[in-house]
Amino acid sequence: MLTHVLLFCFFYTFKKKSGQIESSFTTDAAVLAVTGISAVIRCKAAVAWEPNKPLVIEEIEVAPPQANEVRIKIVASSLCRSDLYLLREGKKDFNFPLVLGHEAAGIVESVGPGVTEFKQGDKVIPIFISQCRECRFCKSPKTNLCDNSGFLTDSTRFIIRKKLIQYMGTSTFSEYTVVNQNAVAKVDPAAPLDKVCLLGCGICTGYGAAVNTAKVEPGSTCAVFGLGAVGLAAVMGCKAAGAKRIIAVDTNPDKFDKAKEFGATEFVNPNDHDKPISQVLSDMTSGGVDYSLECIGNVGVMRSALESCVKGWGISVIVGFTNVHDLSTRPVQLLLGRTWTGSAFGGFKSKDGVQQMVKAYMDKKIKVDEFITHNLTLNEVNDAIELLKQGKSIRTVMRISPE
Amino acid sequence: MLTHVLLFCFFYTFKKKSGQIESSFTTDAAVLAVTGISAVIRCKAAVAWEPNKPLVIEEIEVAPPQANEVRIKIVASSLCRSDLYLLREGKKDFNFPLVLGHEAAGIVESVGPGVTEFKQGDKVIPIFISQCRECRFCKSPKTNLCDNSGFLTDSTRFIIRKKLIQYMGTSTFSEYTVVNQNAVAKVDPAAPLDKVCLLGCGICTGYGAAVNTAKVEPGSTCAVFGLGAVGLAAVMGCKAAGAKRIIAVDTNPDKFDKAKEFGATEFVNPNDHDKPISQVLSDMTSGGVDYSLECIGNVGVMRSALESCVKGWGISVIVGFTNVHDLSTRPVQLLLGRTWTGSAFGGFKSKDGVQQMVKAYMDKKIKVDEFITHNLTLNEVNDAIELLKQGKSIRTVMRISPE
Repeated sequence: MLTHVLLFCFFYTFKKKSGQIESSFTTDAAVLAVTGISAVIRCKAAVAWEPNKPLVIEEIEVAPPQANEVRIKIVASSLCRSDLYLLREGKKDFNFPLVLGHEAAGIVESVGPGVTEFKQGDKVIPIFISQCRECRFCKSPKTNLCDNSGFLTDSTRFIIRKKLIQYMGTSTFSEYTVVNQNAVAKVDPAAPLDKVCLLGCGICTGYGAAVNTAKVEPGSTCAVFGLGAVGLAAVMGCKAAGAKRIIAVDTNPDKFDKAKEFGATEFVNPNDHDKPISQVLSDMTSGGVDYSLECIGNVGVMRSALESCVKGWGISVIVGFTNVHDLSTRPVQLLLGRTWTGSAFGGFKSKDGVQQMVKAYMDKKIKVDEFITHNLTLNEVNDAIELLKQGKSIRTVMRISPE
Repeated sequence: MLTHVLLFCFFYTFKKKSGQIESSFTTDAAVLAVTGISAVIRCKAAVAWEPNKPLVIEEIEVAPPQANEVRIKIVASSLCRSDLYLLREGKKDFNFPLVLGHEAAGIVESVGPGVTEFKQGDKVIPIFISQCRECRFCKSPKTNLCDNSGFLTDSTRFIIRKKLIQYMGTSTFSEYTVVNQNAVAKVDPAAPLDKVCLLGCGICTGYGAAVNTAKVEPGSTCAVFGLGAVGLAAVMGCKAAGAKRIIAVDTNPDKFDKAKEFGATEFVNPNDHDKPISQVLSDMTSGGVDYSLECIGNVGVMRSALESCVKGWGISVIVGFTNVHDLSTRPVQLLLGRTWTGSAFGGFKSKDGVQQMVKAYMDKKIKVDEFITHNLTLNEVNDAIELLKQGKSIRTVMRISPE
């Protein structure tokens, strides 16, 4: 470990060149990784200097992986609504500047001491939830919330003038990033990285919320609120679980065709009704749906989703992220047997879940390509943001580095 | 049916005497019931004329049971916090005047047409939740919320100057009441009515919330908020389910000895702490309890109970009733895998559950007598209310009629 630190200090004094390995001996990161030596990398990243401002493509320094860490060349990264949330609403919870991005795929560039599961060249997906397999949470079948994240949100490996925060432990809007090995899943070498990158968040989150968290039963009636990527994945999950009716709810009717493609059977635009949407759904279903999934991250919609559930056994799952306002409802909604819960990453144990979902994709059992509406590059990240903000994209995949 | 109506009209014209059967032929209700003839009864009841005023003992008329109804001589009734809730907070949801009371036991006086399950002389417990065994809710193992209550809240069988509302379909603060047969449980003829009356609400509600709704697992850690009868029953349920730690939470430390008797292992008075109680419990349990049960009916406590749960799998069950204010929390509490739910009558299918719990009491498997702190009469109902308001009683059992 001391050697590693000394090497780091040594390399750090040499001149730096964008996109290349910083070393006086070689510019080939692969060689360094194979020999156990890795160095600071200078590369491009999209930096969020402050909330609500366009990201800025900057040259940053990425430190070598330390113990139990993996440095990954990010090949493709998509943009998730949670990235926007942070820029727009989550500023109180995070420090700036930071590098966003948490839905990506790449190739291991080098590994730190103690890493045996990965080697240079492995195709991987970094994940914002870890799986250490040792903590009481990993050992329980009830949750995927590992207690040993080892996330680099505080001890960042990114530097530009001052320390850059790594958002969600991943920061994939960068040509290189460093992630704890507990938060990396190795994937099939044949997997196309510009497709399976989507399995790093949205698809697993929505699909898993239906199959793992709600545990949708065959023959049931479901409602999915919000038809972005997460919502469409939830629709896909409900269908896979055998739901008979899948009611897709969105104020943007342009999304209904896509939802139908994923399995939705009915479509409701709240703007078409004077009644509360919970009443509309109750009327459509003789008392309410068996399962509802909120895939937006809006506390008002969370309430509607809960109150759309049938008394007695209705389960409403919160999938969309927000942490600015309280959610609320009348206690009698729960006293009448409804259940309000939520999950992160669809309840999938992160490493296992990603591998399982990549396999399902390779076996053509789940859709992935169909989520991708736009392909851009890292330089166009602000265009990707605008497309998502305006509801024009489902998923934009950005090419970050060549494979 | 026409005969029945004519008889009713005929009997109704004769002079009435308090506490006796109205009939010119006989004063023996039993004889009438056996012969299929029953008449208006004049008897005593505690009438709530308006919110927040003492109840008034009045002479009322109780109509004969109609189709599928059972008229019951109430022998003993206890006072539950929900009765007080209506007087104090629930006035918007109910019309006055009405007769409170829903935790009672009695003897069948007569039955209406179509009733085959009950006969005059049966010992019974009326219940505020029905069990028709035919609706989709009764047929589902997931809920106890029957859809065919047949409750007499609108079509009351009580009359005094104008129509009296039957609260919760039961109105047991009356010497006689009329209840739909779907909401009556026949009990062991050997059961002491002045004890098992408690199984008509509070004990089943708290106990069932732990064993049926939370499904407390052996070895788990539980917190019970509020140590009234429902809370103590929840403690008893947690213990029966094999919980290792049962943390009893109340701002009245006088209740801790009683809670210990029921199985609580630790005791927390929120007034002894500067920190939020959720933080206190989290510190005591390395991250939060596995199950929490809110047995008060206070939305602030509901929030504390939820936030006292461990991330990943913590389940918080709302047991206390209130419907005046919204409950609330930050979405992240649920996104981190906590579950917020509730139940009425502890999730017990009502008729089956009461019979099961009466048997458990007769077999000495659950405590009942230990909940009773006071014994009064119907005339002393306002004293019973004051005792409960002031936190001086757990349960006061009122003798309503002689057996």
